[in-house]
Amino acid sequence: MGNRVCELFDIDHPILQGGMTWVSDAGLAAAVSNGGGLGIIGAGAMPPEVLREEIAKAREQTERPFGVNLIMINPNFNAQVEVLLEARPPVVTLGAVQSTSVIPELKGQGIKVVPVVAAVAMARRAEKHGADAIVAEGEEAGGHIGGTTTMVLTPLVSRAVDVPVIAAGGIADGAGLLAAFVLGAEGVQMGTRFVCARECSVHEDVKRRFIKAGDRATVVTARAVGYPVRAIKNKLSGLYDEWEKEYLKGECTAEDIEKLALGKLREAMCEGNVRDGSMMAGQSVAMVDEEQPAAEIIAGIIAEAEAAAAELPDRLTLRR
Amino acid sequence: MGNRVCELFDIDHPILQGGMTWVSDAGLAAAVSNGGGLGIIGAGAMPPEVLREEIAKAREQTERPFGVNLIMINPNFNAQVEVLLEARPPVVTLGAVQSTSVIPELKGQGIKVVPVVAAVAMARRAEKHGADAIVAEGEEAGGHIGGTTTMVLTPLVSRAVDVPVIAAGGIADGAGLLAAFVLGAEGVQMGTRFVCARECSVHEDVKRRFIKAGDRATVVTARAVGYPVRAIKNKLSGLYDEWEKEYLKGECTAEDIEKLALGKLREAMCEGNVRDGSMMAGQSVAMVDEEQPAAEIIAGIIAEAEAAAAELPDRLTLRR
Repeated sequence: MGNRVCELFDIDHPILQGGMTWVSDAGLAAAVSNGGGLGIIGAGAMPPEVLREEIAKAREQTERPFGVNLIMINPNFNAQVEVLLEARPPVVTLGAVQSTSVIPELKGQGIKVVPVVAAVAMARRAEKHGADAIVAEGEEAGGHIGGTTTMVLTPLVSRAVDVPVIAAGGIADGAGLLAAFVLGAEGVQMGTRFVCARECSVHEDVKRRFIKAGDRATVVTARAVGYPVRAIKNKLSGLYDEWEKEYLKGECTAEDIEKLALGKLREAMCEGNVRDGSMMAGQSVAMVDEEQPAAEIIAGIIAEAEAAAAELPDRLTLRR
Repeated sequence: MGNRVCELFDIDHPILQGGMTWVSDAGLAAAVSNGGGLGIIGAGAMPPEVLREEIAKAREQTERPFGVNLIMINPNFNAQVEVLLEARPPVVTLGAVQSTSVIPELKGQGIKVVPVVAAVAMARRAEKHGADAIVAEGEEAGGHIGGTTTMVLTPLVSRAVDVPVIAAGGIADGAGLLAAFVLGAEGVQMGTRFVCARECSVHEDVKRRFIKAGDRATVVTARAVGYPVRAIKNKLSGLYDEWEKEYLKGECTAEDIEKLALGKLREAMCEGNVRDGSMMAGQSVAMVDEEQPAAEIIAGIIAEAEAAAAELPDRLTLRR
C-alpha cells in the first residue's frame, strides 16, 4: 500500500511546494521535484509567453513531474490556460477558485488538477467536478487566505471528500507533516519553508528576514476589503492598515488599494525591499531557521516525521 | 512513565475543560472532573461571593481535582484572587494575562497555576515566574483570541518552555488530541466541545446551534478595536462589524462598544437568544455533532486517540 498522493503525481514523497508568485520559478520547482517532492511554478500574472518559457525551463532542469499554479482571478488566467492545454505540465493547482469548469478541460489533456480550497463546500464541489486531489489550505498560510485553520479544516475536508487531501498552512517540519496525517491528510503543501530553499531565487534579504521571524511576525491585511492576505509585518503592512481604514470610511475604493499594492510583491521578493514591499509568508515562517537545498529540506522532513512517529507510542501517555 | 499533565493535576486523562464565562459552572466542571479530566469553573466577572459558592458546589459534586479560570482584565479580579487564596481550588488557569505577579501568590497557597497564552514570549515569561504548565491557545479558539494558530503555536511554545504544554484551539476529538501531542503538547484544553456536554447548563437552543454549525460558522469581531473575539456568526456579530466601522471612523469609542456588548454573552448562553446574544465558540464547533455526558466525551476522545495512534503506522506511508 503506497501513498495515494505519491502515486497520483508519480513522486517519491508526499510533499508539494506551494505555488508562489514571483517566488517559485522553474528553478525552485525543478529543485523540489528533483528532491522527490512536487515542485510547482507559481504563474501569478505571468504573460502566456513567460509561462511557456518557465515550463520549458522546468523540463530542462528535471525529468520528474512538476506542476503549475494558476490564480483564477488574475487577468491572464484564460491565456495561461491556453498555454497549459498545449504545454501539458503533469499537474495544475488552482488558487482563488471561482468556477470549476476549467477542471475537466485541463483533465482532458491528461493534466492532474488540484484545487486549493479554504472551505468544505468548495472541496465537495471541486471533487464533484473531477478534481484529482484537494489542497485544504488553513488560514495560517501565506498570501491570500481563507478563514479556517489547518487544525480544523484538514479533518473536515478529509471527511467530506474521497480524493486525497493535501494539508497546507502552518506546516514546515516533520512534526507538522505527521500532525497533518493524523488529521486525515495524505500529503502536505509547504510554501514558506521553500522560500528559504537554496535554489529559491528570492532576494537574500527576504531569506534573512524569514529566518529571523518569530511567532508574531505575520499580519493579515485587507480583511475588511474582502481579500485577506498574510504577509510579514513591515512598513507596507502598516500602510495597508491605514488604507483599510480609509476604505471603511469610504475615502478610497478597493480598486485604489489594489493600485497602491501593484508591484509590491515583486519589489520585496525580487528587489529585496523588505520595508516597502510585500513579503507574503505563512505563520510557519517562525519555524524556518536556515537556508538549505530543497532536497535536504524534503529528506529532513521525511526523516523527522518518521522519527516522530516512532517516538509517538512513548509520548502518547494518556494516563498517569 | 506517566503523563506529566495527569501527574501535575492528579487526573486520569490529560484533558482540561476550558474555563467559559456564563457556561462552565460548578456542575459542568464537576462532571468533567468526575469523568477523569480537569473541570474548570469560568469565573468571568463573578462577584467574589458567587465564586466562593461555585467552588463550594464543585467540592460537593466531585472529590476529584478541579480548577477555576480567572480573566485578569475583569474588574473583580483582585477580589476573586482573595477568594481563591482562601478557598484554595487545586488549579487556577489565568486568561488575558497582564502580569505574572499573581502566580507566586497563588502558588504560595498550594494552588497549581496555569496561564493561558497566545504567544511564545508570554509563555517564557510565565514559566520564569513559576507557572506549573502553560496552555498555548491558538486563534481557532472561541472567545478572546490571539493571532497564531494551534498548528504553529504548539510546537513553538513546546520548544520554548520546559513545563508541560497543553494545546488549546481547534481540538474537539481524538485525532485533534493526537495531533496536539505530535506537535509537542502533553495535554489538551477543550471548551467548545464541552458546551454540548449534557451537564452543561447553557440554553438548549445554543447547543442546537453548536451541533448544526459548519466550517464557516464562526467570525472574529472587534479585531480593529484591539480585542478580537471569536463567536458564532449571527445578528449581533453583524452589528459588531458596523460598530467597528463606526469606531474606525472615530464615531464611537472602544468603551461605547463595550457598553453595547454588556450582557450579550449571558443573553445567548443562559437565555437562549441565539440571534442577538454572543455565542462565543471556537472553529472546532464544526466538529461538535451531538450532546453527550462529559465522561462519555472524555472516554470517547481517549479511545479515538488510541485508535488513531494504532492506525498511524499504516496510514503514514511517505513513499510510493
